[in-house]
Amino acid sequence: MSGTSADGIDAAIVNIDKNKVQVVAFDMFAYPSAVRKKVLEIGEQKNCTAGDISTLNFLLGELFAQAAIKLCKKNKISLRTIDIVGSHGQTIYHNPKGKVPATLQIGEPSIIAHRTGITTVADFRPMDVAAGGQGAPLVPFADYMLFSHKAKNRVLQNIGGIANLTFLPADSAIGDIIAFDTGPGNMIIDQLVCRTTGGKLTFDKGGKIAASGKVNQKILGQMLKHPYFRKQPPKTTGREMFGEIFCKKFRGQAIANEDMIATATAFTAVSIADAYRKFLPSKPDEIILCGGGAKNKTLVRMLGQYTQSKIFTTNDFGINSDAKEAISFAILAWATIKGIKNNAPNATGAKTAEILGKIILV
Amino acid sequence: MSGTSADGIDAAIVNIDKNKVQVVAFDMFAYPSAVRKKVLEIGEQKNCTAGDISTLNFLLGELFAQAAIKLCKKNKISLRTIDIVGSHGQTIYHNPKGKVPATLQIGEPSIIAHRTGITTVADFRPMDVAAGGQGAPLVPFADYMLFSHKAKNRVLQNIGGIANLTFLPADSAIGDIIAFDTGPGNMIIDQLVCRTTGGKLTFDKGGKIAASGKVNQKILGQMLKHPYFRKQPPKTTGREMFGEIFCKKFRGQAIANEDMIATATAFTAVSIADAYRKFLPSKPDEIILCGGGAKNKTLVRMLGQYTQSKIFTTNDFGINSDAKEAISFAILAWATIKGIKNNAPNATGAKTAEILGKIILV
Repeated sequence: MSGTSADGIDAAIVNIDKNKVQVVAFDMFAYPSAVRKKVLEIGEQKNCTAGDISTLNFLLGELFAQAAIKLCKKNKISLRTIDIVGSHGQTIYHNPKGKVPATLQIGEPSIIAHRTGITTVADFRPMDVAAGGQGAPLVPFADYMLFSHKAKNRVLQNIGGIANLTFLPADSAIGDIIAFDTGPGNMIIDQLVCRTTGGKLTFDKGGKIAASGKVNQKILGQMLKHPYFRKQPPKTTGREMFGEIFCKKFRGQAIANEDMIATATAFTAVSIADAYRKFLPSKPDEIILCGGGAKNKTLVRMLGQYTQSKIFTTNDFGINSDAKEAISFAILAWATIKGIKNNAPNATGAKTAEILGKIILV
Repeated sequence: MSGTSADGIDAAIVNIDKNKVQVVAFDMFAYPSAVRKKVLEIGEQKNCTAGDISTLNFLLGELFAQAAIKLCKKNKISLRTIDIVGSHGQTIYHNPKGKVPATLQIGEPSIIAHRTGITTVADFRPMDVAAGGQGAPLVPFADYMLFSHKAKNRVLQNIGGIANLTFLPADSAIGDIIAFDTGPGNMIIDQLVCRTTGGKLTFDKGGKIAASGKVNQKILGQMLKHPYFRKQPPKTTGREMFGEIFCKKFRGQAIANEDMIATATAFTAVSIADAYRKFLPSKPDEIILCGGGAKNKTLVRMLGQYTQSKIFTTNDFGINSDAKEAISFAILAWATIKGIKNNAPNATGAKTAEILGKIILV
């Protein structure tokens, strides 16, 4: 898979046996800079032709195929031992709320199937959009496969720029999964650190700055009044809500820098804990963290304090946090081939459960 | 399927049982004029955005789904009795000889599968391009299914603007199929009729004008010297070779109009017959015609005379000539689901036989 930042291709080799998932290998393959430039331009909806998109579709297909082949070679795994390739592709348009809901991922899967000689499953988002969903998030199905438990309620909590969760009730079916963005993750902390250090630091490494400050309860209370936190899930947010304008409210307060960072860190932790209380049908027994925020010790400590739940990371379960998205699309592809419905309607807003993706036989 | 002229969608219901194909229903559904305009603009490589193409992809998906649903309703056939939808889509780019060979057909098949509730196979051309082929022609596989014979060598001869053939040797395998453009079909006849009648007539209905004239052997001989006729197949031609400039050579001759039309008609017939002698491994026992040229009695008579083969039309075999292309993609989809390789490498130039298309499960 390749994300919207179009840095390159994440590739994982995964072994799935009796519904148990084991990660065999993972690597990242950067796009050539000219390709990245073209992807970003087209993704920013600059003018182009059908030929430009078709050509880029076939070119990315070659790069995705090469990534799969290189990863196997590097790990001395024969391509012939791989049953399925799952490919998310590269998103160049996503507008599920448009007059004509639509989404476009490219990286021609016929090329992947032909070059690798492996049956390929690709293009997972359109079917969820066809079913009235947002075509995202799709990882909750993989979270379900990886982390659901017979007796424990678990939350898979990703803390990137934005924080999002997948709730996996004990002994649940795929239809029971709840997933949504809880609000800001590291976005506000990072912005404040960057501003208050004049750009010397870009994030609060290990949560040290926050640990040296004190949470200002009055400011925290004000910030938590943001209407997003009252909105019913499924819901998504981004930089348009918690970007620079929101940060200015923090910076306008007459408090020490370290107190500001501590308060922003508490803001993320409390908004996550509040989301559990408001929108989850039962308390999570275990929280499994991934994303950069999992490395912020102050944030993790606060999260434990506010949620009163046990906290782990995906690494504790043998899942490299960086590889998680690539792993997810391997799992989605496996389900498609098995004819298992693999969207999570409560996460995407789809009206029905569907088998996502397109199968290319070899 | 919808052709490059983007008039609208051809839809056929086909029954395939023990490799026997029976056509149950056929109809054409025009595109709304705004949609046709957009398709033609994007197909002519006018500037657009990724969003424009993605939106049109989903919109055409809806129209293709509606065509399938309407055809069933009109013929009182329950959608639930349909096993597979095969969709060619709408070509908006095709450049298999580019630096990055690429082709793009749109009409989102996830939408078709979702709206009809039927497993859908779509997007057949990319895999042939991946295998080094031209992604065209794809109908030879269907011709093979429909018309191949244990004991007879057959030629499926389409006479549209350009004339193209599929040769089906007796008792053949798919790998034995030969297919290529023989040269002009009605293109030159139509142009000359249009010019000599001042635009009153656009074609020689029933071949009446040609029947009233005499073939000028000297001019015929000159025309047949065109280098295309010596080129080894697989090969394709078009308006760029046999368009207006070529026609001027005819019009420069001091002969009666009806003699000119008769000579142009003989030109098509002889170029077809010559192609059989030069490029087919054995003489066809039967010629099966389709396309507009099958209705030109003079052309058909000449073809019989020059080839010394028995001549039929697809209608003699229960296959409506207008429906043939739509039927072909139903047959291709059937083969894909069966895991049968359904490109014809001798026709497309692909290095290998492949299973074409993408499967969307419901």
